[in-house]
Amino acid sequence: MALSGRRQLRIWSRNESAAQAAAEALGAGFASSDPREVVKGAEEVVLCTPVEAMPGLAGLFVGALEPSAVVTDAGSVKATVVAQLEGLLGDRYVGAHPMAGSEKSGLAAARADLFQGAACMLTPTAQSAPATIERVEAFWQEVGCRVFRMTPTEHDQIVACTSHLPHAVASCLVETLAQRNPEWQQFAGSGYRDTTRVAAGSPEMWTGIFRENREQVRLAVGDLIAQLQAFSDLLERDDASSLRELLDKTRDLRRTLFTSHESV
Amino acid sequence: MALSGRRQLRIWSRNESAAQAAAEALGAGFASSDPREVVKGAEEVVLCTPVEAMPGLAGLFVGALEPSAVVTDAGSVKATVVAQLEGLLGDRYVGAHPMAGSEKSGLAAARADLFQGAACMLTPTAQSAPATIERVEAFWQEVGCRVFRMTPTEHDQIVACTSHLPHAVASCLVETLAQRNPEWQQFAGSGYRDTTRVAAGSPEMWTGIFRENREQVRLAVGDLIAQLQAFSDLLERDDASSLRELLDKTRDLRRTLFTSHESV
Repeated sequence: MALSGRRQLRIWSRNESAAQAAAEALGAGFASSDPREVVKGAEEVVLCTPVEAMPGLAGLFVGALEPSAVVTDAGSVKATVVAQLEGLLGDRYVGAHPMAGSEKSGLAAARADLFQGAACMLTPTAQSAPATIERVEAFWQEVGCRVFRMTPTEHDQIVACTSHLPHAVASCLVETLAQRNPEWQQFAGSGYRDTTRVAAGSPEMWTGIFRENREQVRLAVGDLIAQLQAFSDLLERDDASSLRELLDKTRDLRRTLFTSHESV
Repeated sequence: MALSGRRQLRIWSRNESAAQAAAEALGAGFASSDPREVVKGAEEVVLCTPVEAMPGLAGLFVGALEPSAVVTDAGSVKATVVAQLEGLLGDRYVGAHPMAGSEKSGLAAARADLFQGAACMLTPTAQSAPATIERVEAFWQEVGCRVFRMTPTEHDQIVACTSHLPHAVASCLVETLAQRNPEWQQFAGSGYRDTTRVAAGSPEMWTGIFRENREQVRLAVGDLIAQLQAFSDLLERDDASSLRELLDKTRDLRRTLFTSHESV
């Protein structure tokens, strides 16, 4: 939707009728469930499937790519996927991860301004062609992203903390309440609602994300467990001044978090 | 604000000019920093200070209460506070906790419809006069709440899970990110933003809440740590089917959470 009017769009979906519906909604000139047909004539190819499906899909269309085409993706995990996609696509591929979206998925959740002002992490490697990096960077900037370059591993460490850990926590909070007493959910207020919102996201997509980034996610979960234990110890000692100090510090950090480029 | 036009309002604040400003904004007939003056002529007295300040405040005005007055409160913790307030106020007091509000505080955050449809936990005890229970229940229903009666301890167990634990998690998530690399916060998306939103709340108020309910909060934090450890163990084993099962279950629970009476 962010590209409507800027590009001649060609839509792929594993489901033929979903591809046609998306094409109609976006004014795309071509749609198909055959990836080889869809990449024909395309100068820019963007993979937006669950991360674990990307290498298989790229394997299907690599032989049909235009010689001048570049490929990027919007996947939430990078190190393992980038290595696999580079193995298949070579220096025509540079990975990306725009930090945009919500717990919703599908065409109904599409918004033309989804990427406006969003941070996009670009993960070129020593194998990437400089021209590919430039073209892929320009592509993400064109839809509205602020682009930052980093290594695939650095990306995975960052999103383990900023994205995957919050999702793990949201699911674990819901499960904690369910194990105590499912009836209690009627007393949940806005704090619980916000803190657990992402748990409503796609289980299929998140199973893939957690598995692909499991080493970094486990490190982040371990860090959070240590923080929660320290918090519990503060309460056990009834250490009011350290508790107040922690709440002051995290309040200040949280309040500065999005003021520069995003409304809360 | 929910009572404007329904009651003759009398406003107390520890700060005289804040009391006058609130009175002006709400059309109240009287405002003062002297609690004895404010409760004169009042049939219903509602304590809305941080919980740890309530007993001291009640001790100041108890001698000036009208014989027919009832007292309630909007505090987030009950067992310890209810015992102290009953000791001072006797059977004229019944505790309450409306599950409404946000991370914002002060007059600027006031909304007339804040309590519409919100659950309100009412915590009478064996000492409460039946007539007081009825009048306090009717008061909270009048501002729009759905009222549920329970013991003070049951209340504290519920809010430890549904309110205090999410706040502890939000602060600990912010601290976890800060200890890794404060620069990474620029890559936080909507998942992190929502999951940590409540960490922007008042450190003064939350220090009081956590301390007053520390036994129940520690139990809830312990439960969550066990869940997070189980989650990490799933990842270590790369147990995709159990991971998917957990995400499916918590997605379903989260999606049903507010459909009956609250929009998400």
